[in-house]
Amino acid sequence: MTTTTAELDVLAAAAAAAAPVWRASSAADRAAWLRAAADALDGRIDELVAIADEETRLGETRLRGEVGRTTGQLRLFATVVEEGSYLELTVDDADASATPPRPELRRTLTGVGPVAVFSASNFPFAFSVAGGDTASALAAGNPVIVKAHSGHPRLSERTAEIVAAALVDAGAPQGSLSLVEGREAGNALVRHPVIQAAGFTGSLGGGRALFDLASGRPDPIPFYGELGSVNPVVISPSALTVRGEALAQGLVGSFTLGAGQFCTKPGVVFVPADGGFEELVAAHVAGASGGPLLTDRITAAFPEGIAHLEADPSVTVVAHGQDGASDSARPVVLSTDAAAVAARPETLLEECFGPVTLLVRYSSDTELLAALEAVPGSLTATLHSEPGDEVADVLEVLQRKAGRVLFAGWPTGVAVTWSQQHGGPWPATTSLHTSVGATAIRRFLRPLVFQDAPQHLLPPHLHDDALATLPHRRNGVLRVP
Amino acid sequence: MTTTTAELDVLAAAAAAAAPVWRASSAADRAAWLRAAADALDGRIDELVAIADEETRLGETRLRGEVGRTTGQLRLFATVVEEGSYLELTVDDADASATPPRPELRRTLTGVGPVAVFSASNFPFAFSVAGGDTASALAAGNPVIVKAHSGHPRLSERTAEIVAAALVDAGAPQGSLSLVEGREAGNALVRHPVIQAAGFTGSLGGGRALFDLASGRPDPIPFYGELGSVNPVVISPSALTVRGEALAQGLVGSFTLGAGQFCTKPGVVFVPADGGFEELVAAHVAGASGGPLLTDRITAAFPEGIAHLEADPSVTVVAHGQDGASDSARPVVLSTDAAAVAARPETLLEECFGPVTLLVRYSSDTELLAALEAVPGSLTATLHSEPGDEVADVLEVLQRKAGRVLFAGWPTGVAVTWSQQHGGPWPATTSLHTSVGATAIRRFLRPLVFQDAPQHLLPPHLHDDALATLPHRRNGVLRVP
Repeated sequence: MTTTTAELDVLAAAAAAAAPVWRASSAADRAAWLRAAADALDGRIDELVAIADEETRLGETRLRGEVGRTTGQLRLFATVVEEGSYLELTVDDADASATPPRPELRRTLTGVGPVAVFSASNFPFAFSVAGGDTASALAAGNPVIVKAHSGHPRLSERTAEIVAAALVDAGAPQGSLSLVEGREAGNALVRHPVIQAAGFTGSLGGGRALFDLASGRPDPIPFYGELGSVNPVVISPSALTVRGEALAQGLVGSFTLGAGQFCTKPGVVFVPADGGFEELVAAHVAGASGGPLLTDRITAAFPEGIAHLEADPSVTVVAHGQDGASDSARPVVLSTDAAAVAARPETLLEECFGPVTLLVRYSSDTELLAALEAVPGSLTATLHSEPGDEVADVLEVLQRKAGRVLFAGWPTGVAVTWSQQHGGPWPATTSLHTSVGATAIRRFLRPLVFQDAPQHLLPPHLHDDALATLPHRRNGVLRVP
Repeated sequence: MTTTTAELDVLAAAAAAAAPVWRASSAADRAAWLRAAADALDGRIDELVAIADEETRLGETRLRGEVGRTTGQLRLFATVVEEGSYLELTVDDADASATPPRPELRRTLTGVGPVAVFSASNFPFAFSVAGGDTASALAAGNPVIVKAHSGHPRLSERTAEIVAAALVDAGAPQGSLSLVEGREAGNALVRHPVIQAAGFTGSLGGGRALFDLASGRPDPIPFYGELGSVNPVVISPSALTVRGEALAQGLVGSFTLGAGQFCTKPGVVFVPADGGFEELVAAHVAGASGGPLLTDRITAAFPEGIAHLEADPSVTVVAHGQDGASDSARPVVLSTDAAAVAARPETLLEECFGPVTLLVRYSSDTELLAALEAVPGSLTATLHSEPGDEVADVLEVLQRKAGRVLFAGWPTGVAVTWSQQHGGPWPATTSLHTSVGATAIRRFLRPLVFQDAPQHLLPPHLHDDALATLPHRRNGVLRVP
């Protein structure tokens, strides 16, 4: 099904009409609306998981877990709205004795207006119709129009029906959440005058095209894209010596998780040249299995991506995992050396969706640092080192390249918490924000300050009595109720 | 003087080398560096004001005041850095009992890297080499390369020399602040791979061109432009009745201040059609004088802008102010009606730099609201009403159109405080941020989270003992020391 331009105009008009209601809604109402959406999804979990499994083949266990993550996310944002810090309330009292006399200023953040959300293929719940972008945009006080992913159209339609109805039943206005389908509708959506910001999770190519549309508008809008990430891992010589076996096991578990279709998959692993890590990994990957990939496009792209890597003269195959069913992607580990990566990063450091990772041998810190400088911006960077290691230089590069730096474990698995950061320098994301965790809400807010306003014309949360119950800064001093 | 590509490369390399030092600098050091820059400017105020007056003809009184604003701004950001809230420190402790087990996460904001700042013509100090963009970028922990404005080249060079020397003398690294000159150098600057963000204050045309360069990079960077604003004012019938005389006087003072060259100049004023406001304004403007405009370009554009407005059949001249010297712009008040504005906003609502304002007569709320919908995004919107007025609908539009909504006084004059918001929907600015006030620092920061980091590898301000002294959120609870 494809949404026509006329249909989009109707949805956009409804979103525009809903926007002032969302913007002016109280914290209690907005939190209740988010929780109503979460409850409705939990109540339909059996039906939704069945449709999702038919469309994505991700399996019931993973999909049930993902629904829980999705509804947990909606409820986290309800808490964020109630807590109130996200408003960044700031008051400076008038000062008639200043030169020039200073007026009273009361600052809040407020919703930007209707938001476009582009669903991802690999998280049919958590980064799709009712996923993190939608939850944070609603929490910020904005209606949302979602572009369905073509990989799970029926699930998208059913999810949108359930959430839209739950919102209205809970008292939110018509037009709070709607769905468009088809690539052209997506392009029209990001260019629609009503839309004030967009969130996206997907490929670099698709995201760049939409970013260019958003930036090229007569009135450019912010486009928050999560586009691609190779998620470098560095293993120090002493870490390899002390816990090589565990590292090999952990790496194989992480890069094959979900058939290697997580945006935080460790795609490139820098290892000491002579520590025997390739053999350890080969032993572990031999028993690992892949799985079916999400869409025909990803299924076709996976062997192409591997062939592209193997075409480089420096690349060799370390080991393969288990053959699965005929439609299953087989895990593979490749290797190269740091000099090749530094020389040809555009070939060797392109993200390849699916169960593949590239080991990069380094023989010295100099070689390692030169290769790391060639790594594109990533969501995560992982350093496995031991207490005695000198890692300051490596850490300086990793902090510059990624939004989340790990010192234990593996980057797959992204906790949805107050502090989480899921974003990083281009092409990991297009922005200085996160698409996971409480502060994702900031993407869909803009500052608004009232100068010398009569109390009755202020938004209620800027009244003095409301300020007493909310975190706020007054005359430079941060106060927590 | 024009900066060559080779010279820019040298400056960019120095900025890149300085970036890790700035990023890792302690709050105490960074605050001391900002104060050293402020002290150095205050110490050279006589020399600097003399050069500025020669180049801009803004006069000694205004220029001395602007130096004070500029050094006050640097000192405000020193306070912001010491206070620490801007880091948004957030810790979630590990939770082994969660499903899946939750790692420890410690989030901070950190400097984006070298920042480009484009100076404005109309604030040779406060929005130029050592102005708000530079102060907030340095405070965020980033070196800065400034593009000088061609309207005050000698002042730019001297300011850059003084500030760069003061920073280094205070212990900051070489390459902390440098200057480029010439339009081509500016274009190359915003495209330079070392530059990670840009701040700009200037015209819509120039800003849009640089925005497109920033967005069109292989790795797009955020471009924070403050581009143009008509700053609508609405006067209600009862406000006109109660204090028409004072409103006319206030408007004339505001739109002629600084010869009408402030970005917050009230450029369009919605007035009741039959309240006699035009006559009141005419009486006040008769005694008002303009002044010399900043540059030859602005001097040439001012009569062109007025002619463009007068070419509309709906526009009439209400009154002129005093003729000044031969190079002086003469104040002028024009008028039209709300229906014309709603029909031809692109003609009637274009910003015109200089002492001109457009009165727009409205006969009903419906007419007023339709015309307000046509107003482009603005830095400010002002509502002059009386307690009994029904203003909810007007206020809804004004909040959507502007970043600062005033209920008394006039929009010229922008206090530099914690709560100030100087920004608004396109084309007022390109972003969801402010270019004046404490939170301007957020534009040049990005989030970075450390997962399961050993304490000795964390930035010092994320250590437990430092957190005890800084505002932070831990396990969802905001704490102020």
